[in-house]
Amino acid sequence: MSKTQTAASMALHDSETASAMVETGRAARAAGREMALASTDQKNLALAEAAKALRAATLAILAANLRDVEAARTADRPASFIDRLTLDASRIEAMAQGLEEISALADPVGTVLAEWTRPNGLRFERVRVPLGVIGIIYESRPNVTADAGALCLKAGNAAILRGGSESHHSATAIHAALVAGLRKAELPEAAIQLVATTDRGAVGHMLAGLDGNIDVIVPRGGRSLVERVQKDARVPVFAHLEGICHTYVDRGADMEIALPIVLNAKLRRTGVCGSTECLLVDKNAHDDYLTPLVKALLDAGCEVRGDPATVTCDPRVKSATPADYGHEFLDSIIAVKTVDGVDEAIEHIARYGSQHTDAIITECGGTAERFLKRVDSAIVLLNASTQFADGGEFGFGAEIGIATGRMHARGPVGVEQLTSFKYVVRGIGQTRP
Amino acid sequence: MSKTQTAASMALHDSETASAMVETGRAARAAGREMALASTDQKNLALAEAAKALRAATLAILAANLRDVEAARTADRPASFIDRLTLDASRIEAMAQGLEEISALADPVGTVLAEWTRPNGLRFERVRVPLGVIGIIYESRPNVTADAGALCLKAGNAAILRGGSESHHSATAIHAALVAGLRKAELPEAAIQLVATTDRGAVGHMLAGLDGNIDVIVPRGGRSLVERVQKDARVPVFAHLEGICHTYVDRGADMEIALPIVLNAKLRRTGVCGSTECLLVDKNAHDDYLTPLVKALLDAGCEVRGDPATVTCDPRVKSATPADYGHEFLDSIIAVKTVDGVDEAIEHIARYGSQHTDAIITECGGTAERFLKRVDSAIVLLNASTQFADGGEFGFGAEIGIATGRMHARGPVGVEQLTSFKYVVRGIGQTRP
Repeated sequence: MSKTQTAASMALHDSETASAMVETGRAARAAGREMALASTDQKNLALAEAAKALRAATLAILAANLRDVEAARTADRPASFIDRLTLDASRIEAMAQGLEEISALADPVGTVLAEWTRPNGLRFERVRVPLGVIGIIYESRPNVTADAGALCLKAGNAAILRGGSESHHSATAIHAALVAGLRKAELPEAAIQLVATTDRGAVGHMLAGLDGNIDVIVPRGGRSLVERVQKDARVPVFAHLEGICHTYVDRGADMEIALPIVLNAKLRRTGVCGSTECLLVDKNAHDDYLTPLVKALLDAGCEVRGDPATVTCDPRVKSATPADYGHEFLDSIIAVKTVDGVDEAIEHIARYGSQHTDAIITECGGTAERFLKRVDSAIVLLNASTQFADGGEFGFGAEIGIATGRMHARGPVGVEQLTSFKYVVRGIGQTRP
Repeated sequence: MSKTQTAASMALHDSETASAMVETGRAARAAGREMALASTDQKNLALAEAAKALRAATLAILAANLRDVEAARTADRPASFIDRLTLDASRIEAMAQGLEEISALADPVGTVLAEWTRPNGLRFERVRVPLGVIGIIYESRPNVTADAGALCLKAGNAAILRGGSESHHSATAIHAALVAGLRKAELPEAAIQLVATTDRGAVGHMLAGLDGNIDVIVPRGGRSLVERVQKDARVPVFAHLEGICHTYVDRGADMEIALPIVLNAKLRRTGVCGSTECLLVDKNAHDDYLTPLVKALLDAGCEVRGDPATVTCDPRVKSATPADYGHEFLDSIIAVKTVDGVDEAIEHIARYGSQHTDAIITECGGTAERFLKRVDSAIVLLNASTQFADGGEFGFGAEIGIATGRMHARGPVGVEQLTSFKYVVRGIGQTRP
């Protein structure tokens, strides 16, 4: 094929994608309107039937997954990538249970958030309604297809899912089970659509909002994906780019509390966004708080990169470079800095943090409240591990991600955050003077 | 000056604007951080002192306004424009009273929106915090400077105001009073900044978000301004493009209620966004509901453009064209259509409405609830005039506008809608298993 022919065929392909994506958006909007009126029972039935369909399709899903995994192996993808991609029977069962857990959550739609009556007798209600159409752009993790689709469904939304191309066979098989659930509940199949990865430029169309038919985009994946989505999206995005979480041990801390929290905050799982990346220690404690914290981290196998005061604690400590502060290690590495009390800790967090999750350890109420008020992060904690930054731990049941923006959703994004509201006003003939 | 010189000087001017605007954004962000920690008393003092300063500066403001008005007259601007631009002593007093009313509103910041305790003993609070930095882009209405600046201040935000160039002398004089109030309360002057209209391209920089230093844009003005802002903004926008409001008179309506509501909804003020632009009448009523409604509108001086059934009611009725439905007249003109019951009314509104405000008149509870649930507008009303679409009428005290989007704010945008929230989590040493 000549260069010109290739270009022409690509242009044709692009315009086909454009019109296919516009059609996807329109179908999602129409399905979203129906979903907004679906009863709780209908939505729960769809989820329960989808769980059944997932279990029944275990063999088909495993076969589809095998194709993806083999292709990834052939492409020499790293082991961690292949691990996230690979399904087995227990992972499929976990997905099905996830759907059943979402089915068991309270339905947020129709909840009256506030009600009041005005002197003229008008009765006002602020009522939860679905958000509309949610676009989810994710990497090659097949389970996101089920989790994200189900959360959107529960909140009465339509979902447009665009997964990583290397998990496409798996995602297609899982998506079929979700659609089977929708069908059983007599809900529109277009309520959860999976975009074919053969559609070139589909992500770009989604980021542009599909002619006003996507209300919000949720990226699920690594930094480069989130960065691209945040940079290019013309619609709102629920996301966090980084989780640069701090734990500050104040002079007023009880070390019996501080030690286990610091170890848990850093090391329980180092690859999650709520993992502490930087330990700040008050230099004004009566006893030496720094050394036992640093030694405990080192003994637990954590690399410690510290400021000069920290380096003197133990020969195993490495000197921190400026780049170590505000860095998301996502590994068994921690930056440590001594600070002159809570105000310097707050300043450090304002400068280096990512407004995700930050904690203070102290028994002093005044210092605690100062920190909790002044640290401008989605989640601020007192005497608890930053690893609690998770929708499940908040009691939200499930989350589609954690948002560090200030608009609409902030912190863990669960079913309630996937809703909007409207005002219902009831009168008996009132006119405005 | 040669063409090249002009271009060079313009380029220089553009880069000066760019750096001035970046500086404005940075100063706003820094001021916003301080404002977030300001006490209620401090914010209320700033508002009270600004009101005093406004009154004290009446003569200076009138002199500045005269310059704007004379320039507008010289430029042959229409009378309605000049009316909106012109200040007198009573309008300045009204502005001062507006500041005092905002001062009297409850402070939303710090309110606990929800609290719960998890089985592990962690205590969760969802606490209101300011939104951050709010950009307001408005036309030549000097009072917006005071109203918008004060609302942002009350909610603990920083404001960047960019008013119409033809009101710039007036806005500058009013802004000086706001700054005087901030100074008296020892709050940062940069909490309310007025962008000089000599800065070329300032609006474009604001729409791009000033390097992440504007959290939301609120346009205040006509359709073309809102359209441009919605099209070009890279940050969230609180706005409505149009208020295509409907009133549906159901077969179950009490005509003694319906008649005054329809007249009020259309004619109380025709230029406001909550004015009804289209009357839908159920064709299945036992009596003729259509004729008395149409005649009353005509007798009140309203032009009626109707479907064939409406045309037969009265010789003064004009035939509606398709373009009359979904049209925002903002005038004494109404489109009228007969529909086959509530479901056709709902369909008509879904097709032609602007998701702003729509009302049903009926005594039938089932029909009312069907309409209130299924009409997807920011405000839905039963047996009341659409002209209640106003923050003051909702009890919000004051509003910065009405939003028809679904994200964050919807309906009247008052101080509460100018806030975000954060999660405060208090533990006694909990670690995550």
